[in-house]
Parts: sequence; C-alpha cells; structure tokens
Amino acid sequence: MPFARFDRYVERHAAAYVERLQALCRMPSVAARGTGMRAMAETVEQSMQRIGAGTRSFKIGSGYPIIYGEFGAGSHCYIVYSHYDVQPVGQLTAWSSGPFAAAVRDGKLYARGAANSKGDLVARLAAVEAYQKTFGKLPVCLRFIVEGEDGLGSPSLYQFTAEHPEMLRADGCIWDDGYKDTKERLLLSLGFKGITFLELRAYGARTDLHSKWGGIVPNPAWNLVQALSTIVSPKGVITIDGFSSHVAPIADEDAKSLKQLEIDEAGLKREFKINHWVRGMTGRALTKELIFGPTCTICGIQTGHTEAGAKTVLPGMAVARLDFRLVPDLSPALVVSLLRAHLDARGFEDVEVNEIASAPFVKSSIGSSVARAAIESATEVYGASPIVYPLDPASGPIGAVCGVTLPPTPLVSFGVSYAGSNQHAPDENIRLEDFMQGIKYFGRLIHRLAQIAKDDRRESSTMESFVQFKIEKS
Amino acid sequence: MPFARFDRYVERHAAAYVERLQALCRMPSVAARGTGMRAMAETVEQSMQRIGAGTRSFKIGSGYPIIYGEFGAGSHCYIVYSHYDVQPVGQLTAWSSGPFAAAVRDGKLYARGAANSKGDLVARLAAVEAYQKTFGKLPVCLRFIVEGEDGLGSPSLYQFTAEHPEMLRADGCIWDDGYKDTKERLLLSLGFKGITFLELRAYGARTDLHSKWGGIVPNPAWNLVQALSTIVSPKGVITIDGFSSHVAPIADEDAKSLKQLEIDEAGLKREFKINHWVRGMTGRALTKELIFGPTCTICGIQTGHTEAGAKTVLPGMAVARLDFRLVPDLSPALVVSLLRAHLDARGFEDVEVNEIASAPFVKSSIGSSVARAAIESATEVYGASPIVYPLDPASGPIGAVCGVTLPPTPLVSFGVSYAGSNQHAPDENIRLEDFMQGIKYFGRLIHRLAQIAKDDRRESSTMESFVQFKIEKS
Repeated sequence: MPFARFDRYVERHAAAYVERLQALCRMPSVAARGTGMRAMAETVEQSMQRIGAGTRSFKIGSGYPIIYGEFGAGSHCYIVYSHYDVQPVGQLTAWSSGPFAAAVRDGKLYARGAANSKGDLVARLAAVEAYQKTFGKLPVCLRFIVEGEDGLGSPSLYQFTAEHPEMLRADGCIWDDGYKDTKERLLLSLGFKGITFLELRAYGARTDLHSKWGGIVPNPAWNLVQALSTIVSPKGVITIDGFSSHVAPIADEDAKSLKQLEIDEAGLKREFKINHWVRGMTGRALTKELIFGPTCTICGIQTGHTEAGAKTVLPGMAVARLDFRLVPDLSPALVVSLLRAHLDARGFEDVEVNEIASAPFVKSSIGSSVARAAIESATEVYGASPIVYPLDPASGPIGAVCGVTLPPTPLVSFGVSYAGSNQHAPDENIRLEDFMQGIKYFGRLIHRLAQIAKDDRRESSTMESFVQFKIEKS
Repeated sequence: MPFARFDRYVERHAAAYVERLQALCRMPSVAARGTGMRAMAETVEQSMQRIGAGTRSFKIGSGYPIIYGEFGAGSHCYIVYSHYDVQPVGQLTAWSSGPFAAAVRDGKLYARGAANSKGDLVARLAAVEAYQKTFGKLPVCLRFIVEGEDGLGSPSLYQFTAEHPEMLRADGCIWDDGYKDTKERLLLSLGFKGITFLELRAYGARTDLHSKWGGIVPNPAWNLVQALSTIVSPKGVITIDGFSSHVAPIADEDAKSLKQLEIDEAGLKREFKINHWVRGMTGRALTKELIFGPTCTICGIQTGHTEAGAKTVLPGMAVARLDFRLVPDLSPALVVSLLRAHLDARGFEDVEVNEIASAPFVKSSIGSSVARAAIESATEVYGASPIVYPLDPASGPIGAVCGVTLPPTPLVSFGVSYAGSNQHAPDENIRLEDFMQGIKYFGRLIHRLAQIAKDDRRESSTMESFVQFKIEKS
C-alpha cells in the first residue's frame, strides 16, 4: 500500500485541515455583495505559497483577482479549476447557525461556501501538501486557477482565459463541481451541458391599461404566450425549426456509459413530490433524456398584476426567461439565431430575444488521462467505482478553461459535497468524512496521473481496458 | 326656461357645494385600509338627512354600512347608486398635493375619490337640494343607495340586495360610472359588461428546482402556457369550445346606436402608444368589438424567478390571472364551466381554475324612461347630445342593484369626471365646471323623469321618436 504513509499523515493532520477550512469559511466572500473579496483572494494566494506554489494574481479591470498557483513539474500538466467566492447567504433566519460561523455539528461543517467550493479547494491543497510531505515533489505539474466571480457569471475568467491561452494548454483539467448522490456514490462528470439564458419581451401599450380594452388593444401577455407555445410542444419536445438536426448522435462510448447509469427515480420523485416524469419516461429513456437531451425551460414569466387583490389590468409588457441546456453540437449563438428565425417565421418579429448569459458545452472522452486517473483512483478510497456522467445536466464556466485551446482540454469533475449539502441554500454544509476522503482521493489522483504520464507511450494499446471499467449498478 | 331659477340657485351656492365636496374628500375612506370608514358613512347619512331624506343604515356582518336615503314621492321611483369609499392612494410621492388635501388648482379639485365617486354623490345631493329650494318637493321618488365597499368587490351590497329585493323594485337606476371623453362629449352607458376574474394554477415539483432537471421534471410554466394558448387564438379570438355560440346577436336598437358611435382611434393610439388595434381592426368593426365583443385578457402571469440576476430555475408553480368581460348571454358561471370542460378535453385537467370575483352583465334598452330622460336632459347643459353606449366595455357591481328584480331595472350611468380624471391613479381630480354642470344636469334629469312618468300611458306610441335621437358624430 504505497498510500499508507500518506493516509496516516492526512489523518494526523485532520484537525488542522478542518481548522483551515473553517478559517476560510469564516471569511465572507460573497461576490454579489463584494464583501471581503480582496482578503479572501490574498488568503488563497498565501495558502498556496505556504505549501510551495509559485503564484500570480491576475486582476482583469475592476474584477476580483484570479489566483494562479503552480506546483510540481513533469512532462504532464493538469489544471485544477476552482473559485473562492460564495453565493449570497439568503434568509439569515433560515440558517441553524451563522452562515460564516463555520460551526461543526454531528460531523458536518455548516457554512456558506463549505460545499461550493471552499471544501474542495482546501482538500485539494491539503492533498498536495500531504503528497509533498510523504512522497516529495509532485511528479506532475498542477496549475491551480481559482477565480472569484463564480456568482457573477465569471466575466474575469472568460477574459483571462482568452488573453492567456498558453496558461491553459494542459493535458487535463480537474473541476470541483460534483458530489456523492443519495446512494452515497461518488459522481464523476466528464462534461457539462452548455447553457444560453434568454429573456423574451413583448410590448403592448405604454403602460398597463384597464382591462376593458382587452378586446381591441394588443396584449403582450397573449403575444408572449402564443410565441412560447410554438417553441416547446405540449409533450415537452423542443419544436424550434432546425433545432433537433443540430443534436449530435450519441457516441458509442457514451452509449456504453449511459447503459451503466441509472437515476434513482423513486427517490427523486419523492424528493420533488412529482408523480411522473415528462412524457411518462422511465428507465433508460429517462436517463438518456437527462444526460443527452437538450432542454428549454421557462425559468420565469412576469407580466401584469399578480399580487394580492383583484386588479384587472391589460399588461403593457410581458417578460419570460428561458434557459436552454445545450448538448453537442448546439452552441448558444446557434440556438439564439434558430429561435429568432423560428419566431420571425411565425409572425412574432415583435417579440424581443435578449441573451443574458451563455456558456458552451464541454465534453471529453472517458479515455482521457484525467478521466482514467479519476476513475481508477476512486475505488480504494470510496470502496466502489464512481458513477460516471459522460455529460452533466448542469452547466458552468468550465468551457472558459477547457474550451479555449484546441483540441479542448479533457475534463473530469467531482467534489467533496453530498446530496444534502444545500448548495445555494441555507445550512450549506459538507460532511467532514467526505472532506477527508476528498484529500485522500486527490492524493491518489496525483499519483495515478504521474503513472499514466509515464505509461503515455503505451496508452493507445491499453485504451480498451480503461474504457471497460465497471460502474456499479443500483 | 323653467330652469333659470334653478341654475341661478346652483350658481349662487357654487362655493358651498365645492366646500362640501372638499370636506368629504378630506375624510379618507379607503375601504382596503379601513381608515375613516365609519365617520364617512355617518357623514353621508347626515348629508342626506340635512336636505330632508329619510335614511337608514344597513350593516351586513362586519362590512361597511350601506347608507340608504329616500327623497320625494310619486308614482315612479328611481334608484341612485353610488359609493363613499375610495381607492388606495398608491405612491404618495406621485401626487402633486396630498391625496386628502382636496386642493383646488386651475379649476380642478385634486383628491382621491374626487372623481370616483364623491364628486358625483355631492353633485347629485346638491341637485336634489336645489330642486327642492326652487321647485319644491321632488316629483319622483329617489332612493339613494350608497355603499362603502366598491374597492373590495361590494360583498355587503350583493348580500343587501339579495336580502332586500323590495328596496330595489324601481322604474330605473342611475349610476355614476361615466365621464366626458377626450372630445368633451358626455358619455351615457345603458349597460355594462359582466366580468369573471379567474386564477389558473399549474403545479410541478414541490419547489423551484435547478433548471438542469428541465428535460425530465414537468414544468408548470410550460403546462400553463400550453393551456392558455388554446384559449385565445394568435389573432385574439376566444377559442373556448362552445363559447361563441352563447354570444347573443346584436339587437336592432343596439346596431342603430353602434352606427352612431365612433372611437377616437388616433387619439387613443397616441395615448396608449400603440400602432395598431387587435386584428388590424378599424372603424365600425373596432367599435363593435369594443362594445359588443367578449374579452379574455391575461391580467397577469407569475412563475419562477424574474427579478434581477440570472437565476435559472425550473418553477414549482405557475399562476395566471385572466378576466373575461361578458356580453349577453355569457354568465360568469357559464364561462367557468365552458373553460373547465375545454381544458379537460385537451388534457389540462391538472390546471386549476379558481374564480376570484365575478359580476353579471347589465343591459337595458334605450327606450327606458331613465335612458330617455338622461338623453333628453343633456343637450341643454352640455350643448350637444350625449354619446350613448348601449353596453359599456367596463364592468361593476351594478348587477347587484339592477339585476336582482325581474325584469331587470333599466339603467343609465354617467358622471362628473373627464378623460383626465386619473381614477385609481395619482392626482385624481375633477374639473369644477364639470361638477357644476353635473348638478344642473341632475336637476333637469329629475324634472324630465317626472314628466315622463306623467306621460307614461302614452309611452308606447312615442317610443320610436325617442330611439331616433341624434348622436353627434366626430
């Protein structure tokens, strides 16, 4: 067991790691509020320097700095992407303890940012430190890129990566979006859907009118409803002209991965309090739709008067927000232009389409070195093979990191949180046991990446066996 | 000129009348807030007693009292319906002077309630007083019914009229909903559309979810949009199964009235800042649609997240509020049941339909004694014939007053406000000249009603000529 010494070291320092995480969680760094951002950025940089990183801080315009830290050396280089800002705390009264108290109760650390993503950042840096203490210098090069604008749509990151593509040339990228599911299985994601978040606006009279005019004054709410009703069928199928022809067929290796995945249908239905899935789907069809189906979701509609009291108005404006989750080969720009043409062709030229935020999909192969290393390193720590999502139904700014260079940098993503982590919600928390496992896992991942780098010349011949890793079924 | 003395009396007392109105306007009586309601009710009752009315106050449950006051005598009896409560004041800062200051500027009296409807109530009582002072006892019986819950949907009124149908048996009813239009023409309404105000609700997951679930978790916003899109066509035609077959053909006398009506299309388009009407209608078709078309208006939709920030959620609930304005022979109950059946037939059984508030249509003939008296009395005061709406596109609780007895009591409605009165808005106001005209007009109306009562036996033979009154064209 080459990791016995590593694990002992990690366990001996468990208290110190938790304290480090608590220290970070006690520093508010809510990007949306701008509170404590500079102090947090400096602390992150110092945390990396203290364990031997060469660091740089990149400030783009008036944005929050991106902290860059480099460890180790070797022929192969991997990016570790994370962020140091946290979500707003929301309703303070909904928290059992202060969101920045970082209280530990029943083996869980409660704090805004504990799960998303300070727990991961601290665990990964702890693993690097423990690795250095027990094995010596890292056998691969790790480049940490830690931004501070996750809660703002990562504008600095997009600009940074566009301006410094050379810093993103790497053999793989490791992100920290991921968790253990309700069945305690570690999830690994090899890609993320893209997203385009749009606002549709329809206009009528200059202001809300008395609804007695309803028969003769154009109602933007009706116009918007009619326009929307042409975009998705009553059965929930996206019906935008030409849309489906851009959905790429599912690759063989992904079809193979899909067969080994299964959604906890009964558990999720209980959690969501729903009694059926869209189109009555179940089993394989349901999983396939979740992973490889593009989506078009009405995220919100607002028009007219909807507060208390019977106010009968004819609205002057109607707004809908839609998000599309994009699978290969749908790009945000393509979807916006297809939607525009679709609406125009049906007489809805007057319905505005405004792009609010977008991110491309990212998708990499299960045969990449990061994917293989992540899959192979998991069992020893987690006692079972991880669940591999060829494409995660969620989205993120990861395209800015992986998609800038060509070919795209292979990706794997996972994290120390669990199904009850309440990310973005009150009582965000992680379990300290998951945190410790995360440190041990990341140490093994570093090791395995170095081995794979050594074996690189033999990679093509061994590929097949890597693809056929076993995914535990539920 | 039998009214020379009456007019002189009115003019001599103009200042006193304005002061009376100011006094009433300085007493807040916002039913929705419950402020000053008892004092206002008492003041209304005293105002009537002071000029010789026998009064009663009806209190239904915990509602605000309905003040009843009876003047005069004679074979014929007419109800004068009004209300003493006012709308909430809204944004105080949007008012040029305090909403209860009742300031007079440039010949206008600014106050919440000045136009709706304290100006009318004071003018009508002033006319009764002046009539008594100049002609003696009223030659017809006038029953004032003044309620205090106009802003609450008139629950007490509905109960009162159901419990006391004998008090509503009358030869006609005079309401105070009406104004001078942008071309300074007095509008008379002989009926009002009914209304049913509904809330449609669709449910999905127990709470808003991350929109990554959009492809497999039913989205109530999509369900609601699809359901709504079947109710009204893209051209704005109500497409509920069986709906149109209940729309009665337009009666001959109404077709005749319609021909003499004209909407100020250019003026209204400018006011509303729109460049076309629904279906590109103009002229006669437009007027006919406004007056005799049933409407279905989306008054509001709320679902998901629509505030600042790009929050991509899959909503757990979606709510739409619709109002239908009802022409003969559409009743609220019928429309609710047609809509329910229509939605069920299309698989939208899960979309809830809840009735929030309703009122039946009221429609009476241009040949009724109140209509004839109102039309014939107008020219002398207003210098031109009034514009007669066989059916007003608005709605109100007037059905509770006119529709309780069978046959329904004939109705005419008009008021002292004008197109710039800002009812329900900041800077509500009336012009004092309109107020004075309103007093003079109401005095003549009392007189004409008495003459018509005398001529009653000859009514059938003179009917034709009354119907052929001239309506000024624009």
